[in-house]
Amino acid sequence: MKVRVRVLPLGKDLNLKVGANLRSALIEAGVPLDSPCGGQGTCLKCKVQVSGVTEKLTELEREKLSAEELDHGWHLACQVTVEESGEVRLPEIEVSRAKAGFGLLGEEIPLQPNVRRRHFELSSPTINDQRADWNRLAEYLEASEPVPVRAELSLLQEISERLREGNFQGEAVLVGDEVVALDPPDVAEDVLGVALDIGTTTLAAGLVDLDTGKIVALDAELNPQITFGADVISRIMYTQDGSEKRENLQKEVIKGLNQLLLRMCRSAKRERERIFEATVVGNTTMLHALLGLNALHIALAPYVGGLNRALCVPAEELGLQIHRRGRVHILPSIASFVGADTVGVILATRLHQTKVPRLAIDIGTNGEVMLATNDGVLTASTAAGPAFEGGRIKFGMRAIKGAISSFQATPSVDYTVIGGATARGICGSGLIDLVAELFRAGVLDRKGRMLLPSEAGASLATDLAARVRVRGEEREFVIFKNEEREVTLTQQDVRELQLAKGAIRAGIELLMKEAGISTDDIQEVLLAGVFGNYINREKAVTLGLIPPFPLEKVHFIGNGAMDGALRALLSLEERRWADEISAQVHHIELSGRPDFEETFLRCLALGN
Amino acid sequence: MKVRVRVLPLGKDLNLKVGANLRSALIEAGVPLDSPCGGQGTCLKCKVQVSGVTEKLTELEREKLSAEELDHGWHLACQVTVEESGEVRLPEIEVSRAKAGFGLLGEEIPLQPNVRRRHFELSSPTINDQRADWNRLAEYLEASEPVPVRAELSLLQEISERLREGNFQGEAVLVGDEVVALDPPDVAEDVLGVALDIGTTTLAAGLVDLDTGKIVALDAELNPQITFGADVISRIMYTQDGSEKRENLQKEVIKGLNQLLLRMCRSAKRERERIFEATVVGNTTMLHALLGLNALHIALAPYVGGLNRALCVPAEELGLQIHRRGRVHILPSIASFVGADTVGVILATRLHQTKVPRLAIDIGTNGEVMLATNDGVLTASTAAGPAFEGGRIKFGMRAIKGAISSFQATPSVDYTVIGGATARGICGSGLIDLVAELFRAGVLDRKGRMLLPSEAGASLATDLAARVRVRGEEREFVIFKNEEREVTLTQQDVRELQLAKGAIRAGIELLMKEAGISTDDIQEVLLAGVFGNYINREKAVTLGLIPPFPLEKVHFIGNGAMDGALRALLSLEERRWADEISAQVHHIELSGRPDFEETFLRCLALGN
Repeated sequence: MKVRVRVLPLGKDLNLKVGANLRSALIEAGVPLDSPCGGQGTCLKCKVQVSGVTEKLTELEREKLSAEELDHGWHLACQVTVEESGEVRLPEIEVSRAKAGFGLLGEEIPLQPNVRRRHFELSSPTINDQRADWNRLAEYLEASEPVPVRAELSLLQEISERLREGNFQGEAVLVGDEVVALDPPDVAEDVLGVALDIGTTTLAAGLVDLDTGKIVALDAELNPQITFGADVISRIMYTQDGSEKRENLQKEVIKGLNQLLLRMCRSAKRERERIFEATVVGNTTMLHALLGLNALHIALAPYVGGLNRALCVPAEELGLQIHRRGRVHILPSIASFVGADTVGVILATRLHQTKVPRLAIDIGTNGEVMLATNDGVLTASTAAGPAFEGGRIKFGMRAIKGAISSFQATPSVDYTVIGGATARGICGSGLIDLVAELFRAGVLDRKGRMLLPSEAGASLATDLAARVRVRGEEREFVIFKNEEREVTLTQQDVRELQLAKGAIRAGIELLMKEAGISTDDIQEVLLAGVFGNYINREKAVTLGLIPPFPLEKVHFIGNGAMDGALRALLSLEERRWADEISAQVHHIELSGRPDFEETFLRCLALGN
Repeated sequence: MKVRVRVLPLGKDLNLKVGANLRSALIEAGVPLDSPCGGQGTCLKCKVQVSGVTEKLTELEREKLSAEELDHGWHLACQVTVEESGEVRLPEIEVSRAKAGFGLLGEEIPLQPNVRRRHFELSSPTINDQRADWNRLAEYLEASEPVPVRAELSLLQEISERLREGNFQGEAVLVGDEVVALDPPDVAEDVLGVALDIGTTTLAAGLVDLDTGKIVALDAELNPQITFGADVISRIMYTQDGSEKRENLQKEVIKGLNQLLLRMCRSAKRERERIFEATVVGNTTMLHALLGLNALHIALAPYVGGLNRALCVPAEELGLQIHRRGRVHILPSIASFVGADTVGVILATRLHQTKVPRLAIDIGTNGEVMLATNDGVLTASTAAGPAFEGGRIKFGMRAIKGAISSFQATPSVDYTVIGGATARGICGSGLIDLVAELFRAGVLDRKGRMLLPSEAGASLATDLAARVRVRGEEREFVIFKNEEREVTLTQQDVRELQLAKGAIRAGIELLMKEAGISTDDIQEVLLAGVFGNYINREKAVTLGLIPPFPLEKVHFIGNGAMDGALRALLSLEERRWADEISAQVHHIELSGRPDFEETFLRCLALGN
């Protein structure tokens, strides 16, 4: 028997045998796990943080791991026997070792961050060399910097003490051309950066050691703004009552980010004060909310935001709790509904450098479609709505423990629940599986109508027929039921999925039409998004979410937006690419096209 | 009979006949007074603010001037009959009309300020042109800017409303490459800048209309930091008890500047919020105090400050109440005791471009000496002390109403009191006159000893001899005495002046020695400083404050430091010159020279 184990931060799913040794299984699957002792339990380097997978602790683990580590689910991979599905989180991923296919920075990126450490050894002042402290340091640094260096007042206010404490030697930390910190010599303090992805539903963060390029923590959190509305339009509308509403929205997301950073730094045993830069992607509305900008005109035709360019803001001005002189670099957006998250996906997938037609789809609350050809990249935004993230679905939930994440109707009803627990709801990938399988099995017709046994005819398996019922006015399909609870898929749920599916598929169709190419021309299809890896490719085709591509052309890239933010954190060249992408990618406003409505209505139908 | 009238902001002193018409007298003296009606009292353009000069108001003035104007001493120059000495302040000076000799910007400066107004007319967003608001504006401006434009978050937070209020047209105000304000179209709001000179004793400010280059107000105020010590060393020592002391010092000077700006703007009927940039000069310690930097190491050998480079700081960070996104540009300094004020004097006098030897002396609490030759500019700082500003002098006071500002001993004792009032004390120019005249008359000997009649011998005039007396242990010279009060010059006062004089003269001697030139080689001598214009050149030579230059070589330039700050406000090229001066001027540390002590002791003696 096999269970599914997700490996984080890679976002890679493995099907592992129950009873397998976790360390061996991970290494066999190519996961870069550090375990120089070969699994003897002596090097203690194969620590992983586990959720599900096992419920046992060995004697060795009890002895070698701290109480805090045990509390947080840490195990030694060599001691773990796989028992059930779940998640395994690796402590550190060295970028250069994270190869293509893991969905996270699938290639080596030369380390060229905006945050740099510079060692200095200054001559001490004498009566014959009375240069002021800042002049002395700046001249030293400028001997090998391309441009003059700068400093904020707060650093200048402490420079005289700092230089004398270190006897005029030490380490300067620069963000761009600005000296932001002075460390004493011989004290190896961290230089960290963080990549942030601000989604409508989820905040994700990747903490990076900028000396090594290692990702030292990767974590996510619900966007607390969700209490002000599940989608971007409802949040924009919330802010229109007064500017304090805009501040509320801003405060909530900052609070969420600060909590996330605090938790990550605690678990990685790092200091938030040593994070010198944050790179940020997100959809345009979320970036407006983060910055306290009025996003009203994003929601009103002709859909124009306040800012699509990249922006650098002092972290202190936003209230982001990193180093007091740390900077926040917001990546540029493309249009009001094609944000910096899409720029991140393009950056991560190299669509902007492609020679052959390639298609990428980032599925979240909005679905962004990107089509690259030799003539450049086209993008479109489609209003997928929150269905894929569990929104407006009766038993919808995020992909956490208790969520039905995959489903099959034949030969008999079977499904997987995350964490191996009792089913509590349905996450995005489960929803796609359900609708695709029920359509294939004849429970749903092409128009998405749920058929009663009498309507479906004799071909419908008895087992399936028995699960369709009518409650009140509405038809529903019972997936799970025990004495305490049940989980069903309603007719309305199917309609919600159709809207989402139809929007995305219409975007794909119209971009192909605009570029003058057909399904056959496309050489690669990339599925991105927080839950991208969970989608069953075959069922996405069955459903008609994507055109009938050969499955070998379809790849999952995980959270490509986060990859883009990480790239911009690790390399200034990537950051320049991002600006170029923002300026050069051609956005197609679907609602402005005369053929949009017809295409959308046609794409609502299930199947290919 | 003639009285002395000082014309501000020019700093020019005129000797006017009692009974003269003020308008005619000013025009005759070349003062650029606007009065197109020719003195008929109809154009109302010759408004001046008067202190002293007259106590009368004509019927026409009562009728034409507002109650507030009358309260603040405004008159129509054509209606004023000169009755007594005092001050006349002109409302506006157009830079291009303020010619050499007035001591303020003595040449035309091409207007090329860092603060610029840019008209914009943007195309309105459409479904086919969905550029975000900031992108739209930035692209428009960048079509004719040399570098990409920037904006702070607070501007971006209001850009959507601002652009729509003006129907996508208006005026952008830029400071450097940053858009700091968006004005609606067809509303001619001011674009102002202010030049600030932060002296140990005095804060001076010049408010400039940057559209026209006109100086619209010029004012000065006691530096409120004076309560923490009269000289820079005592203020540095005050701050060493804790960082809150440094904050106190910073707060005091900011408070003083804000009061000064408020007063100036009120009198000039301008808004502080329309000041977009301040340029700042001052001695290095005062600039450290302004910025909250620790100046301790300025006071300790080898006398090294925290910062001598130019610095640009948001006004909001300093608490300076100008536009909320206004910037403060601190001019660079040369050394710990040769500050941005000296850079300002060099800029104003063009010493850095001179081909022939020229000497400049800026006399304040410290005396900076600058010697320019074909080989470059040498500077030295001399610890003149506060004597010239009335400090440590028994009856010392600033040059305000009641101060004895000039003195002669022969043929009989005579002196001038500012404002024509009863004498209350002695200001710097009066002190120089007194010591020079008493030395020439034989009351003081070459060593500065005050002689009793018995010691002075028969050549001493009886009138003078009778004024010398001994009080307690100390000899003193009685200048004025009535039933209520008296004003005297004490032996100790003479000693204080000798220290100041000796320090400055030693600086001149040592720079000439360093440059290998003699008194005869020097083609021009420029005296700068707040009270520079009041010094009697002949008496400065008699005293030995300066070497025996022919008087025609000696010129007064008024507050040259302020001129430099104004230049940097009006022209970016001047600002670049300032940086070059700071980097290239060669500072001579007098205390490091073996010949300093001998020279200083020799220079203490009176006479040449």
